[in-house]
Amino acid sequence: MKPYHWLILLLSVALIIVSVRLVYVLSEKENASDGTDSEAALECIMTRASVRDYLDKAVPDTIIEKILRAGMAAPTARNRQPWEFIVITDQTLKDSISDSFEYATMVGKSAFDVVVCGNRDLWGDNDTHEVGNWVLDCSAATENMLLAAHALGLGGVWCGVYPNPERISKLSGLMRLPENLVPLNIVSFGYPAAEVTPKQKWDPAKVRYNPGQD
Amino acid sequence: MKPYHWLILLLSVALIIVSVRLVYVLSEKENASDGTDSEAALECIMTRASVRDYLDKAVPDTIIEKILRAGMAAPTARNRQPWEFIVITDQTLKDSISDSFEYATMVGKSAFDVVVCGNRDLWGDNDTHEVGNWVLDCSAATENMLLAAHALGLGGVWCGVYPNPERISKLSGLMRLPENLVPLNIVSFGYPAAEVTPKQKWDPAKVRYNPGQD
Repeated sequence: MKPYHWLILLLSVALIIVSVRLVYVLSEKENASDGTDSEAALECIMTRASVRDYLDKAVPDTIIEKILRAGMAAPTARNRQPWEFIVITDQTLKDSISDSFEYATMVGKSAFDVVVCGNRDLWGDNDTHEVGNWVLDCSAATENMLLAAHALGLGGVWCGVYPNPERISKLSGLMRLPENLVPLNIVSFGYPAAEVTPKQKWDPAKVRYNPGQD
Repeated sequence: MKPYHWLILLLSVALIIVSVRLVYVLSEKENASDGTDSEAALECIMTRASVRDYLDKAVPDTIIEKILRAGMAAPTARNRQPWEFIVITDQTLKDSISDSFEYATMVGKSAFDVVVCGNRDLWGDNDTHEVGNWVLDCSAATENMLLAAHALGLGGVWCGVYPNPERISKLSGLMRLPENLVPLNIVSFGYPAAEVTPKQKWDPAKVRYNPGQD
């Protein structure tokens, strides 16, 4: 064999090896999409933790809207979507909430807050006990927002207002809420100042199977 | 140039093209991990829909546990975790629930169901209005389970029980629940029989900004 034969052989072998590797990587990428997606969504749920300290860093409006959209994607009884979300970015308002609620001082330092409200006009029929569903629906929406924030690299914390009548009337007054809105909570959001470890809450003793079947 | 010169040139060019493509794909794969993860978790929230028709296909215990773990990862007021999850797989019990609740006939055909209960022993102090928090906490846990199921390729639907007193007492009797447990809902799960399109619920008119600041 002449030298250029060796060169052609070498180049051909290299081309085959690199091509095979490329096909392998591409097919792996394709296959990973399902598994990785379900893992990523589960991991988001399992690694969420309440974040109370934030960096002094603004959150873009596009990110805020993503979080609000996640909230409104929650399921609601009879599809009533009985909510209204109040976004707070004004520092004066944030400070007055922080000063008035000793358990919610993080509102003063957060990037933005969402007060999740039930809207009485959308609560449904009192006779069929539908009215109480707004609390369930708005709680599911709140959890969606906390998860979306975590997915986007932010953190948040749920500061309870309802069902404490004092907190409800104080916050309603402070924000001059119309009569038809009842605040469920104040949810603070921002980029976490430090990594927060999620609590280990799994407790198999809190699971029962097929009761009453003896 | 002789013919073999052309061959060497052609092979060299092909090798360079394939190598560049490989490096590009590999670096893309590396960079994608962050972006893709947050997209996957958000997409899980945005594409979840209530699933009422299921395939006749069992769900492995490992998958059921993943869903229950997601439920217990929800935030709770003062970290009370005031819940208990009742898993129903027994067909006789499923049929009697399905027969007794005309709005929950999917229980008879689902792979399994979870009755999310509040545990009065863990509700906290009545004087500080803590008692009402179990509804919020258990609703957040329910949403986590619905999202986890969707991430795992299953579907589910939240059938309301609380705060309807008739439904509460009927279900408590049927399942012979102890006095300290109050059922919030029956959540049915299974592999979806058909693709379900999520409702479009985003409504910017339900968002307000910085109220009371004029």
